[in-house]
Amino acid sequence: MTADLTASCPVPLNDYAQVLLAHGGGGRLMDQLIAKMFVPAFANPLLAERHDGALINLDGRRLAFTTDSYVVRPLFFPGGDIGTLAINGTVNDLAMCGARPLYLSAGFIMEEGLSMETLWRVVQSMKRAAADAGIQIVTGDTKVVDKGKGDQLFINTAGIGRVEHERPISPAGIRPGDAVLLSGDIGRHGMAIMSVREGLQFESSIESDCAPLADLVLSLLNEGIEIHCLRDLTRGGLASALNEIAQSAGAQIDIDQNAVPVHEEVQGACEILGLDPLYVANEGRFVAYVPVSDADRALKTMRAQALGAEAAQIGMVVTGSPGLVTLKSQIGARRILDLLSSEQLPRIC
Amino acid sequence: MTADLTASCPVPLNDYAQVLLAHGGGGRLMDQLIAKMFVPAFANPLLAERHDGALINLDGRRLAFTTDSYVVRPLFFPGGDIGTLAINGTVNDLAMCGARPLYLSAGFIMEEGLSMETLWRVVQSMKRAAADAGIQIVTGDTKVVDKGKGDQLFINTAGIGRVEHERPISPAGIRPGDAVLLSGDIGRHGMAIMSVREGLQFESSIESDCAPLADLVLSLLNEGIEIHCLRDLTRGGLASALNEIAQSAGAQIDIDQNAVPVHEEVQGACEILGLDPLYVANEGRFVAYVPVSDADRALKTMRAQALGAEAAQIGMVVTGSPGLVTLKSQIGARRILDLLSSEQLPRIC
Repeated sequence: MTADLTASCPVPLNDYAQVLLAHGGGGRLMDQLIAKMFVPAFANPLLAERHDGALINLDGRRLAFTTDSYVVRPLFFPGGDIGTLAINGTVNDLAMCGARPLYLSAGFIMEEGLSMETLWRVVQSMKRAAADAGIQIVTGDTKVVDKGKGDQLFINTAGIGRVEHERPISPAGIRPGDAVLLSGDIGRHGMAIMSVREGLQFESSIESDCAPLADLVLSLLNEGIEIHCLRDLTRGGLASALNEIAQSAGAQIDIDQNAVPVHEEVQGACEILGLDPLYVANEGRFVAYVPVSDADRALKTMRAQALGAEAAQIGMVVTGSPGLVTLKSQIGARRILDLLSSEQLPRIC
Repeated sequence: MTADLTASCPVPLNDYAQVLLAHGGGGRLMDQLIAKMFVPAFANPLLAERHDGALINLDGRRLAFTTDSYVVRPLFFPGGDIGTLAINGTVNDLAMCGARPLYLSAGFIMEEGLSMETLWRVVQSMKRAAADAGIQIVTGDTKVVDKGKGDQLFINTAGIGRVEHERPISPAGIRPGDAVLLSGDIGRHGMAIMSVREGLQFESSIESDCAPLADLVLSLLNEGIEIHCLRDLTRGGLASALNEIAQSAGAQIDIDQNAVPVHEEVQGACEILGLDPLYVANEGRFVAYVPVSDADRALKTMRAQALGAEAAQIGMVVTGSPGLVTLKSQIGARRILDLLSSEQLPRIC
């Protein structure tokens, strides 16, 4: 029986007989695992879209449904903790479907010996973050695993949102000529985590950008912006989000690095560590694809809000090679911006 | 700051400064943790109901929404695996809301080094179980944690179901005079897990009862049975489910042990191990509270289906002490059937 199952399992054919950290890293290996393992097995059109959430038509009502597990290490970091991540991460996936976040579930996997005060602090963060995002936690579950079989606390949240407009927002909606808009500066979440990881401390304090993005997205929709696609920047950073979208949309995306806002302390920290901010994780930033004729109005709308103050057009969708992302560097040379095989930092969210 | 937070954290006041395995065991400690930590923090009426899922009214449509994480050890056991559990467990929570299961999310937390073949086998089980339950997996997430910081594989599923009837099904609906119906024999899931746990092997093979319960529940609703409340029997077994309902409903429940079906091999295994089958976990059984005038018709409907073949009336809701569960034992003595402080077996689901 084992032999049969192995033979029919497509993933070991790629020489990975075991799950690696990279299979959860938001890069090429995770992409392969999802494409070869999960999508074929659970075959249905919603999953195959590879959107941030599923758009469900339930008796004529359009709902968005999404889930994420949070395994960030350490649990607390400048600008947030696993609790704020668990709320905002799922709120943002709903927002990327163009939905108004309404209801959350919360599943806690606790390691035996977790300090009750730590749990309490995380739960209070979740309470505040849920209130800030205007979402209700309506159902939950608690599990405890033996000491040494977990890592203090993992949290899963799933979310339901209401789609209140008729616009189809998905990679399939992208067109050559679309402007690529970025909602703010990049790299802060990843570098905030890095700043508290074992032994790595920077002089200046970099805070995570962790924030709920739904209001910003809903304001664009209210403004009548013809949003074609949205994608938040998480594991794998801006570069991975662009690559995923370029592949799903079958479009080429050209980016101008000079237009991508990176704060000086993030740039400095990245240089010290040999990291590229384009690949560093974010938790409160997204890219919007809109017709170029709507770009200025969209930027004005975003910049009027604190979370979108640094919004910028960073590139264009062009006719060219489907799936390709190119980057014009700060010195003017154009190169391919590829998908990394894994996240630079494991367990970033 | 730490001192303030500790002072405002109610749980350590109960002398538990750390999370114990029992806090996830379905017994008294888990009950306290939920009541004192999660319900007050995430305060909203849906969570406070302590139902198996939240009943949401979305623009006039009634939906059920629920979540569970699965941390069962070992991953494979007679009659199922973590994949079948992850589908059926959440399907059953939707069924207990009287809902038709429609959509599932799936979040995988994998430990680095997990065998790809093991993952593949679990995913195939999920595929089959989802097809059997008529539910679609429409969105998902994969995370990987470092070797030694997990235990091969944890799965979270969240589910959405449609409530297709007007009946309010919840503990508040229970009335003195209601019959307590049990859908089948008890104790098989817990003893199946036990049979493969380290060093404990029985001669006869006991298979888990893991199964999707939605069809059985929907058939009762189609039959016009006036269901007042439903509860599936999971962690903590029949005794815990009865206690939770008696407390939530503010009612007394009297049970006749002679009426509770327990298969001979389960009874024998329990006796060897000193376990009480009333507290052993199940994954394909539920209790229904219906007016006694509907009891015979409900039993006939259930018994016509394989999953309900051994359905039986096991007791009555009576006026008496709110929250009390009493048991008339096999030799006729009546005693209080209490909530254990924890599950007899950790990580049963």
